[in-house]
Amino acid sequence: MTNVQELVERRERLLGPGNPLFYDAPVHLVRGEGVWLHDADGNKYLDCYNNVPCVGHCHPRVVGALCAQAGTLNTHTRYLHENILDYAECLLNKFDDGLDRVAIACTGSEANDLALRIARVNSGGEGFICTNATYHGNTTAVAQLSSIFEPVGGYGDNIRMVSWPDSYRAADGLEGEALADVYADEIETAINSLEANGIKLAGMIACPIFANEGLPNIPDGYMRKAIDYVHAAGGVYIADEVQSGFGRTGRWWGYEESGVIPDIVTLGKPMGAGHPVSGVVARGELLDNYRRHEMYFNTFGGNPVSCAVAMAVLDVIDDEGLVANAAEVGDYVLEKFKELQSRHDMIGDVRGSGLFFGIDLVNDRETKEPAADKARTIVNAMRHKGVLMSKIGEHDNVLKLRPPLCFSKDNADFLAATLDEVMAAV
Amino acid sequence: MTNVQELVERRERLLGPGNPLFYDAPVHLVRGEGVWLHDADGNKYLDCYNNVPCVGHCHPRVVGALCAQAGTLNTHTRYLHENILDYAECLLNKFDDGLDRVAIACTGSEANDLALRIARVNSGGEGFICTNATYHGNTTAVAQLSSIFEPVGGYGDNIRMVSWPDSYRAADGLEGEALADVYADEIETAINSLEANGIKLAGMIACPIFANEGLPNIPDGYMRKAIDYVHAAGGVYIADEVQSGFGRTGRWWGYEESGVIPDIVTLGKPMGAGHPVSGVVARGELLDNYRRHEMYFNTFGGNPVSCAVAMAVLDVIDDEGLVANAAEVGDYVLEKFKELQSRHDMIGDVRGSGLFFGIDLVNDRETKEPAADKARTIVNAMRHKGVLMSKIGEHDNVLKLRPPLCFSKDNADFLAATLDEVMAAV
Repeated sequence: MTNVQELVERRERLLGPGNPLFYDAPVHLVRGEGVWLHDADGNKYLDCYNNVPCVGHCHPRVVGALCAQAGTLNTHTRYLHENILDYAECLLNKFDDGLDRVAIACTGSEANDLALRIARVNSGGEGFICTNATYHGNTTAVAQLSSIFEPVGGYGDNIRMVSWPDSYRAADGLEGEALADVYADEIETAINSLEANGIKLAGMIACPIFANEGLPNIPDGYMRKAIDYVHAAGGVYIADEVQSGFGRTGRWWGYEESGVIPDIVTLGKPMGAGHPVSGVVARGELLDNYRRHEMYFNTFGGNPVSCAVAMAVLDVIDDEGLVANAAEVGDYVLEKFKELQSRHDMIGDVRGSGLFFGIDLVNDRETKEPAADKARTIVNAMRHKGVLMSKIGEHDNVLKLRPPLCFSKDNADFLAATLDEVMAAV
Repeated sequence: MTNVQELVERRERLLGPGNPLFYDAPVHLVRGEGVWLHDADGNKYLDCYNNVPCVGHCHPRVVGALCAQAGTLNTHTRYLHENILDYAECLLNKFDDGLDRVAIACTGSEANDLALRIARVNSGGEGFICTNATYHGNTTAVAQLSSIFEPVGGYGDNIRMVSWPDSYRAADGLEGEALADVYADEIETAINSLEANGIKLAGMIACPIFANEGLPNIPDGYMRKAIDYVHAAGGVYIADEVQSGFGRTGRWWGYEESGVIPDIVTLGKPMGAGHPVSGVVARGELLDNYRRHEMYFNTFGGNPVSCAVAMAVLDVIDDEGLVANAAEVGDYVLEKFKELQSRHDMIGDVRGSGLFFGIDLVNDRETKEPAADKARTIVNAMRHKGVLMSKIGEHDNVLKLRPPLCFSKDNADFLAATLDEVMAAV
């Protein structure tokens, strides 16, 4: 423990205060494999949080591809290389027809930053819509669309934030299409508000499963109605699949659940299983039209090593059947959580999509009063019981679980049993 | 050659048109080691362009560090890990006192984007100054400070571009301090222009060796005068060391030649020898004050793998004496180029700083009319003779050479002999 304190102090001295750390007692990790992480004291943790190492920590095929290419050649896209082309071909094959071009960058933030400009060029507009409880990344432009943290200089007058669609705490007890209408109509109001200020809509950006908002049950038809408003105003829909993509939801892409095909899809976190690589997939005319207006070159983006790694990730997801595993084990975990709900009053709602779960904690099931304190207590207690997870949501009361896609039913049993034990003690 | 044509066509289909490629006949690289690159047809090229693989292509120590850490653990900075701390300590030791904090990101663009916000928070201003022939990266915010390419939506009214300081084509035949005054006074004018529009200065960003501008001979005292104006207006000076850093100039940092210690330094390209890692080094109070205003977290930034790679790069630069090599071989190359200048009238000016060279081609030594056509012809001819290089500058007429830091005198002899031959044939 002295060592941990020393590390925290060195960190403050070298990186400054304010660098986020998980848990009241930070974890000092030294090794990972599959769904397991190990700390410096020899403790073992079941990783129920990290979506980035989607194929499992330190997957030998991914590490092998990385090392083989890094030892052979690593340059940039101003020379020709097969890796970026082979990868682009395989990646685009995973998308619906029409989404037929890709640009490769290094981070989800870069991908979203680029997507915003593609939307601006193609719409001729400057206005953007996002939800009121989200985060899309850390560049200056993207931070404008991140309502969770106030950006430097405040928000521009071209930004409108709308309520995230929520079936659990919906106002007025509305349901189904009536509820979808209430939320979707906020998009129309936002567009009108922009226009009233002389600002044309460029587009709307949203995570298709509203992961940061708390992974809500989205009212049926919401996305279709919302996007119809966006398209009618000449804007484009950017699906931020940085969290929901690459099999996380039990389908390849989060947008598949919504029944709406986006104009632009942004990719990040799991794309290289930890190697910094990201992408923007778009309808060809959108990306091509953008490239006629602005030179975009990314020194590290699409280099042979990044593409070799990203290709290995795609291959492992396919060869190990991880999308199907996410669906099957995801259902199994959801059943377990629902069983816990039947015995723990603090669980107000259990939501999930593949291997992405939100457990909405409440102080009272009638009032649905969010229980942020309980969420914090449980996350910290689980860490001491050897399970890593976190929390999200507008009220910071939703347990967030997002394990590597190779998560098994045995892992699920351990997770559920530990959570049961911890909840019983709260 | 059919293969190259096929690759170009696949590229257009998958990535779209408008992705920049070097050379009229693009090069299809398959392997690299040290200063050498190999194409798919078995041709070998002396790499006189790539500063990213600063320690040489596929350096075994860098690849070894990458593979060892990637096979052990790759997470993010919300857990504790020694690598980022050990690296931060070694990196900061390379800087002057006062530059004592670092934030790690993935790309030079991200580093510059973050630096702009640090400047905004600390100055309370929004106005930025850059030169009129530069490029600092590809995010929406940073593209505003890149005069080489017009950004989407045009420039904001908070941007002022000033002439880059140039001793070779200076107007009015001024020299020394008188010339420095003319250029530096443009900074004052820009600040006044911002203030007249109600915009307070946030800062000035510049590459300390003005690499994109054409690597000019900077009039003595220019930087000191310029920065005095910036500081007097409450702004900060951001040195973009993405090109000039890590020993390139024969000193650790480009700013050392100017005699001015920046408030913020941004790092990129060579930092990970091709692995996507970048950084912002700043005076502690600037970074700390920023972090009090905005949460900055970068999923891949500062992960154990990136820091292991960056540490290996630092170690190799130190252990192989590459900073001293850049200075010594750099001087040797410069002598060779000056010898060429004595025999080739098209060489108007030869400039250099360590292993970074600009050869300013002219149609007439008296008028100094820039010879962009000749530059293009020579770059393409050199490629066919097995030497890779490029061109830069406001007039696109400056041969740009920036080889890996392990470049030897033998390499220099081959480069100079080939350039002599090609110039004789133009």
